[in-house]
Amino acid sequence: MFIANKINLRIPGPTPIPPAVQAAMNKPMIGHRSGEASTLINEVSERLKPFFGTNEPPLLFTGSGTSVLEAAVINTVQPKEEAIVVVTGVFGDRFAKILTEYGVTVKRLDVEWGKTPEPEAVKNMLKQNPNAKAVFFTQCETSTGVLNPIDKLAPIVKEHSDALVIVDAVSSLGAVPFEMDQWGVDITVAGSQKALMIPAGLAFAAVSQKAWKVIEENKNPKFYLDFRRYRDNLIKGTTPFTPAVSLLFGLDASLELLEQEGLPKIFKRHEVMKEMTRSAIRALSLPLMTSDQDASPTVTSVYQADGWNSESLRSDLKNMGIVIAGGQQHLKGKIFRIGHMGYCDPLDVLPVLSAIEISLKKQNVALSFGTAIQAAEEVLSTYV
Amino acid sequence: MFIANKINLRIPGPTPIPPAVQAAMNKPMIGHRSGEASTLINEVSERLKPFFGTNEPPLLFTGSGTSVLEAAVINTVQPKEEAIVVVTGVFGDRFAKILTEYGVTVKRLDVEWGKTPEPEAVKNMLKQNPNAKAVFFTQCETSTGVLNPIDKLAPIVKEHSDALVIVDAVSSLGAVPFEMDQWGVDITVAGSQKALMIPAGLAFAAVSQKAWKVIEENKNPKFYLDFRRYRDNLIKGTTPFTPAVSLLFGLDASLELLEQEGLPKIFKRHEVMKEMTRSAIRALSLPLMTSDQDASPTVTSVYQADGWNSESLRSDLKNMGIVIAGGQQHLKGKIFRIGHMGYCDPLDVLPVLSAIEISLKKQNVALSFGTAIQAAEEVLSTYV
Repeated sequence: MFIANKINLRIPGPTPIPPAVQAAMNKPMIGHRSGEASTLINEVSERLKPFFGTNEPPLLFTGSGTSVLEAAVINTVQPKEEAIVVVTGVFGDRFAKILTEYGVTVKRLDVEWGKTPEPEAVKNMLKQNPNAKAVFFTQCETSTGVLNPIDKLAPIVKEHSDALVIVDAVSSLGAVPFEMDQWGVDITVAGSQKALMIPAGLAFAAVSQKAWKVIEENKNPKFYLDFRRYRDNLIKGTTPFTPAVSLLFGLDASLELLEQEGLPKIFKRHEVMKEMTRSAIRALSLPLMTSDQDASPTVTSVYQADGWNSESLRSDLKNMGIVIAGGQQHLKGKIFRIGHMGYCDPLDVLPVLSAIEISLKKQNVALSFGTAIQAAEEVLSTYV
Repeated sequence: MFIANKINLRIPGPTPIPPAVQAAMNKPMIGHRSGEASTLINEVSERLKPFFGTNEPPLLFTGSGTSVLEAAVINTVQPKEEAIVVVTGVFGDRFAKILTEYGVTVKRLDVEWGKTPEPEAVKNMLKQNPNAKAVFFTQCETSTGVLNPIDKLAPIVKEHSDALVIVDAVSSLGAVPFEMDQWGVDITVAGSQKALMIPAGLAFAAVSQKAWKVIEENKNPKFYLDFRRYRDNLIKGTTPFTPAVSLLFGLDASLELLEQEGLPKIFKRHEVMKEMTRSAIRALSLPLMTSDQDASPTVTSVYQADGWNSESLRSDLKNMGIVIAGGQQHLKGKIFRIGHMGYCDPLDVLPVLSAIEISLKKQNVALSFGTAIQAAEEVLSTYV
């Protein structure tokens, strides 16, 4: 019934690869120390600036997103120093794990999964831990689908502390506004396979002048993830170690697509996909994991409820060529997650909703076909 | 005269990408936690074993070659412990730099660049440093074009010491024999963009049972480069952090090509390309950097001599669409290097030699066109 390998990839990253990006990755290989490579490296770093909202040139790493999470830790805080981590899910917890591994004293602000922290709670953490050298946030917590309001949280840190503000924007950068310089964020890290629409393997870090002062004094041993090596080489139009050149070709092309669409329209597109998805899930009376206020425009999590099974639902969708994600850690088998980011537009959301209706009905949930679609169309029609 | 972007990439990595590998990297993106991804991860690890000459499943990393050089260091030796590094060029020196960064006491055996170490010298180093926990070698030293005889050197370590034998095989694995288990190598690291014929971004490490015992006791803080995480996840058919999926698609296809050709023929092909190149360079009376015995089948270095300039030569070749490499560090402007590895066959060597003749004549070196080609053809004709 369905065509093999015709996949609707609707997990919260990687996203499908746009044909123009795929084509760019087919360019003949070049030497990574060539003039062409230098031009490419300089240009993509420059063109990434608006996505981070910074005047500092983003550094380019070959690695998974976690490589730059670790880099953000080991370049800034030292053993026995204190760091605050706002944990809203798996990836906040990952920051805490990395910090613990390196002997940093971790002060966790654990927030119920599916929620964002109260500003008061962050303020109290800062007051109770005046020696904290850095505060770690996750912008979009991919594991739950919350978008932490960095625009509000970073200024709170700046007001009450001298700590660095470090943000994991892996699954949100390029899909939602990020104003690093304006908000007072010191280090922002991101990856390639989410809203930037290229395969995994590149990672990025933008670093404030304030953070560079701390980094210069940092004594941790480090080599592959030493920010200074990347900065010093970027000035010379290169990377300290062999970059993933084919992915840089892809990044060049994806930036072209993103620039053509323009950031305001990209952000609006993701907002609309979020609203459509949430409105449809509500119309089906399924329990959304996050509030309207906390919801990320890139991923929507839905709790499993009585009468149907989320893993059966994922399996039914898979048979129709639609791939969505399940829950991680203690949420395994308890939620499903729909990714709507990157190379995905409002019409791409509709088949997911139809397939969910079909699976639910198959699982004997009482519903009328079209309920979810109708709600999503109501949202979409107000924008077209 | 020449077609733009029709490049003869003859640097010692990256190599050109075979069309079948390029096509494989165009497959639709898949989720990295999917069943398809698990199958892919398990299969490529299994199929890499013969290239390493080991029964231990090679671990898969997303990173440059240097990421696994660092991993080999931080998983095995601890601050203040001793390690011996046999330095035959830039990449041996890189091991020493990483070890120094992590506070390991480095005992360097510096070998004149362009040469391999005398077995006696290695033996003496082992005797003088009985506490060394590991001995680091570089199989092919890309910066000079020597192939260190790991088959002879590793057993010397085993005979005189209990130290781990750790080998960087980045620019040789898949082009020359490597018998990790038979030779007694404990950790072998490699990268994707050399003889494995895919773009940079994947890195590999194979680890012996003896090394695992040391790794289990290792107390260094580490996260992204922690071998144990990769081993424990590989058993479950996955990677601890998001892998570069498009490069895994490429690896799958390149392994297919390599398996079709078969290791004996691959090794022979590289031997022939080496012999052709060396014979041609000799016919032109240019000074080879390495002896026949020390020369690597993957890269040939040639010293600049009176009457012509190596950077002018590289520039002339570039104008003809041929990219070769210059020297690194103190060899900058003093040598040129021809890569003949990966997606490169004997006929691909010939245009490089012709272009060298043309550039030398342009630089007023007395020679008859065809001198180098004639010598190369003499070699090739004995094999076809």
